[in-house]
Formats: sequence, C-alpha cells, structure tokens
Amino acid sequence: MPEFRKDPVTGRWVIIATDRARRPADFSREQVVPKGGRFCPFCPGNESKTPPEVLAYRQSGGPNQPGWTVRVVPNKFPALRVEGDFDRQAEGLYDKMNGIGAHEVVIETPEHQATLASLGEKEIQDVFWAIRDRMLDLKKDRRMRYILAFKNHGESAGASLEHTHSQLIALPVVPRTVQEELEGSKRYYDLKERCIFCDIMRQEINTGTRVVLETGQFVVFCPYAARFPFETWILPRRHISHYETSDLAEFGNLGWVMQALLRAVDKVLEKPAYNMMIHTAPLQEPDLDYYHWHIELIPKLTKVAGFEWGTGFYINPTPPEEAARFLREAGLA
Amino acid sequence: MPEFRKDPVTGRWVIIATDRARRPADFSREQVVPKGGRFCPFCPGNESKTPPEVLAYRQSGGPNQPGWTVRVVPNKFPALRVEGDFDRQAEGLYDKMNGIGAHEVVIETPEHQATLASLGEKEIQDVFWAIRDRMLDLKKDRRMRYILAFKNHGESAGASLEHTHSQLIALPVVPRTVQEELEGSKRYYDLKERCIFCDIMRQEINTGTRVVLETGQFVVFCPYAARFPFETWILPRRHISHYETSDLAEFGNLGWVMQALLRAVDKVLEKPAYNMMIHTAPLQEPDLDYYHWHIELIPKLTKVAGFEWGTGFYINPTPPEEAARFLREAGLA
Repeated sequence: MPEFRKDPVTGRWVIIATDRARRPADFSREQVVPKGGRFCPFCPGNESKTPPEVLAYRQSGGPNQPGWTVRVVPNKFPALRVEGDFDRQAEGLYDKMNGIGAHEVVIETPEHQATLASLGEKEIQDVFWAIRDRMLDLKKDRRMRYILAFKNHGESAGASLEHTHSQLIALPVVPRTVQEELEGSKRYYDLKERCIFCDIMRQEINTGTRVVLETGQFVVFCPYAARFPFETWILPRRHISHYETSDLAEFGNLGWVMQALLRAVDKVLEKPAYNMMIHTAPLQEPDLDYYHWHIELIPKLTKVAGFEWGTGFYINPTPPEEAARFLREAGLA
Repeated sequence: MPEFRKDPVTGRWVIIATDRARRPADFSREQVVPKGGRFCPFCPGNESKTPPEVLAYRQSGGPNQPGWTVRVVPNKFPALRVEGDFDRQAEGLYDKMNGIGAHEVVIETPEHQATLASLGEKEIQDVFWAIRDRMLDLKKDRRMRYILAFKNHGESAGASLEHTHSQLIALPVVPRTVQEELEGSKRYYDLKERCIFCDIMRQEINTGTRVVLETGQFVVFCPYAARFPFETWILPRRHISHYETSDLAEFGNLGWVMQALLRAVDKVLEKPAYNMMIHTAPLQEPDLDYYHWHIELIPKLTKVAGFEWGTGFYINPTPPEEAARFLREAGLA
C-alpha cells in the first residue's frame, strides 16, 4: 500500500510508493566524471579569466596566481549585484526592487578531474571553511538577510562548468521556503519548548532504520518524508541555528562525514549528479532556540514533472528506509 | 540591472535576470516529436493492456474497444489506490496514513504521432471536457479533497510514454502549494474585497506587454514574477473558482485558446517539452470569491538546480515581457 507521510517541519505531505519501490539500478541517470580537455576558467593558470578572488587558501603565490587550494571569486555572470540601491517600487499591484545581492563561486580544488567526493578529508573540510569565511564577511553588509550555499554537481543537476565548485548567493530577502521551515519549527517550539530537529534526530537514532552514519558531531539520515529517492540530511548533533557559528570540532569532522557520505552515494548510485544545500538561519538573526542548521543532499535520479511543480506534492519511489540501508551497506570508510 | 519581483499571490520573490536575457535560441532542449515504432498500450487495439476505461468519448465500438477519441483509464502503476481506509497513525513524532486516492490517465487522441498542439480545436476541447467529467465523478467520493490535473509533455518533462496524455491525481489532502495560493488570495480579498486574479488580469490587459492573446473568454499572459522562461498563464475572464464548473462558452473556447498557445510555443521554442497544470479550488469547497482557476504552462528550458530546491527561490533568465513578445509575434492563428 502506498503511504502518505507528513514532513513534521513544513507540514508537506509526500507519497512514498512502497509497492513499486525503485532500487538504485532502476534509475537512468547521468554518470558524472569530469572529462577536461576544454579551456577551464577555474583551472590554475587561468586566474585572470575570473573576476578577482575574494578569498583564497593558498600554499604559494600571490592573489590571483596559482598556488591556491580553494579559491572564491564573484560569479562572472552574477544573478545579483552588490552595488546600488534597492529602489523599491510598485508597478500597479506588483512589487519590485533592484537585484542587490552577491553571487560567488567556491572553486573547491585546483584539480580539474577531481570531484568533491574524491578529495581528501582535509580538502573537503576547507571547502566548508571557505563557505563559512565568506558568510561571515558577507554578513557585515547589513542589507543581506540570507545566504544560500549550494552545490550543483553534474550537468543534469544544473552545473554549467564541470570543474567542481559550490556557489553562494547573498539575498536581501529571506526565501519563502526557508521562511516556511522557520515558521514550522517555531510552531513546534512554541508547543513543546524543544527544537524539532533535535527531536527528529533523537527519534532517528532510536529507530535506526533511516540512519546512514553517526559520528560524535553529526548524524546523517534519510528523512521520514523524503521528497526524492536517496534524499539525505546531515545534522550537527549539537543544537545550533547558524552554520557559520559551528565550532572547530564540527568543522573538523565535517570533511570526514561528507567524504564518507559522498563516497557511499557514488558507490551505490554510480557517481550520480546531485544538488546539495546548506539550510541555515537568516544572517542577521541571533541564535535561535527553534532552528537547527543542516545540509540536504538530493541525488538527481528522477525528473521533476508537472505534478511536483503544480503542487509542491512529491511522489518518492524509494522509501527512505531502503535508501538508508543501501547507503549504510555501501561500507563506509 | 537584475530585478527582484514579488509574486502578488504567494509573496514569492524571483530574480529576473534582465542583463543576460536569454532568447529562445539560447536554450538547449529536447525537441518532442513522437516517433512510434514500439508497442504502445495507449494505441487503439491495445485497450486490454490498460486497466478498464472509466470514461471514453467514442464514435463507434463498445467499452475497451477501438473507436474512441478520448479515453480515460486508471494508471496501471498508480501512486495511490481508491480502496481502503486512511488508517491515520503516528510514528513517534511523525504522521502517516494509507495512500488513498485515485490516479488516472487521459489518453488525448488515438493517434500515436499526434501532440496536443497538433490536434484540432474540437479534439483539444474534448480533452478538457474529459478532465471535467472525471473531476465531477471523483468529487462524489467525499474523501477526495483535491484533484490535480496535469500534463507532462516530453521525456525531459517527466513523460514516461510518448503517446500524448494527461493525468489526474485525486488526493485526500490539499497540497501545500495550493494551500499557499489560496491563503495568499484570501489575504488580498480580505483587504480589498476583490479577487487578486481578476485584478492581475485587468492590469495585464491595460499594460499589454505581457499579454500573449485574448479572447472573449480567456486572457493568456506571461506572469509578472514568472519563475521560468516562457512560463504562461491562461485565466478565464469570468471570476470562477472551480475548473469543473466552467460553462459551455468557456469550454467551447478553451480548445481554440490552447491550440493557438501551444502552436505558438511550438513555433518559438521548436516543440519543447513542457509541464501544464490546472490550478483550481479544493473539490469540496463552495464557490470562492477570492480564488480564480487557471492553467499554468511551463516549457522545460532550464534545469532545476540546488538553488531552486533549497529555497523555492527562482532565477528567470528571460523577462516575461520578452517571452510574451516572442509568443505574440509567432503569429497566432
């Protein structure tokens, strides 16, 4: 019997198609292997082909020269611009404002053929440090209310350049989906005086069937009301609302956790395309008792169709319990 | 300068990338041309390969025999089932219930090589009548609270069979996105005592730049805060909340309107894949002063990436004014 499951945070129902459960081999998908061979603006030596860097971790060389290990540059074709005024206006019953914001690219490694999964633990950790450093810097611009940090891996997941990279978009508004997650978790907190993500994590650890891996700092599991097959969440054990205020132990462990998870995903799903997003509290908010930052990973296995777009209603053909079992059994590190 | 625009119904902000506006030729995309050549369960003569029909318009033959022009059958691999109880349960802090509902397929024509755009005006009209007839029938089951009628055209838009068809999913819950649209329009009505969609339509007609076509019954335009390039909405002029209670004049005109629009889209974007959804009021609600049914058409031109999934925040590279101009100039019937 198919099952409706309700996401406890947002209240969104999903259909888990238990009867025709799809296993990893049932999905046709892109296999993401960087080929190289073309000119790449993200490769060392081509630093002048991107806007000047805003951050780099480097072992040698000066700014905008080779020798870096992680490099952050403004997007050459930014969706938003830092300079200017909002100039909020009405257009009849509509509202608009200028596209003020920032759009940056985190080049995760100088190696063109690498993927985030293939990098060493320390190199992966540095990508997450770089995201943090840029968040702390962008936060100083008080107009910025939210930063989206995300990664599109593979062309079918929306990556336009194959050299492995993440992106940051700083926005002067809090996106609606983030707002809904905040409101949902606030409602729960008002009722129970507990963080819903902490409660979810406790229940997942007790149940065990949806857990992929646990460390001293993080719990990785496939969520109960997963929208997509093999959707996976990474939560810090400690209650903390803002990604950028995570501590040294957390950043120190995140490289290992992400390496283990991404390698399991690559093994089970044969190097799939994926999207990854950091969900964190709005920049200018103080620490929140009711919100808990986390990462969501969505392998690109199915096509989004009219049903999903029209309604925000999802049919997931792989129960999260099965997805978690496949990932657990992939034999982590 | 890129522009933030706010959807007046849902409050969702989108980024309209005015600087690097993409024209039709800039999108790489699937060209959808049904090829045939394989066994097709939707073709006449193969009626026994689908579950027995629940509705057919036919010129000859008996039930489940050739001679039909439109045929509606339960989905062979349904996401939901009609039989059984909800059996609502908790699983710790989670909520679930059995997947009660209906999932039907509307086979739009006996011709395998046809597309909805290539059909005659009267044939297209009949597809919309069939959807109405099924809605009126499914509405009798008081457990059903919402019916999603949608079409995935082309493999990249999620169609798994190429023989042109639409789908209906009857749900015991109102989807979240629908709920948000209802709440947004209710808020506006409470403030102004006017339907927001009626106001939008009036402003679009006055402005003109986003209008694609107008008839006595419908207005077709690209919405101000379009999430996707060439996103287009079809609204009945008359205020009416439920699709299934549209009148003879409206259904009579809808075939022509959809034929004109889909042929313009095929011409401008070279037979793209697309998704189309009917947005209508919940089944068991009375006529609503604040809601207005409409159709949303989304050509599949861009890939949905982490940014969109993570946030419900969209970057649209083609301003709706330009999209509308291309569609208008395609020279409608």
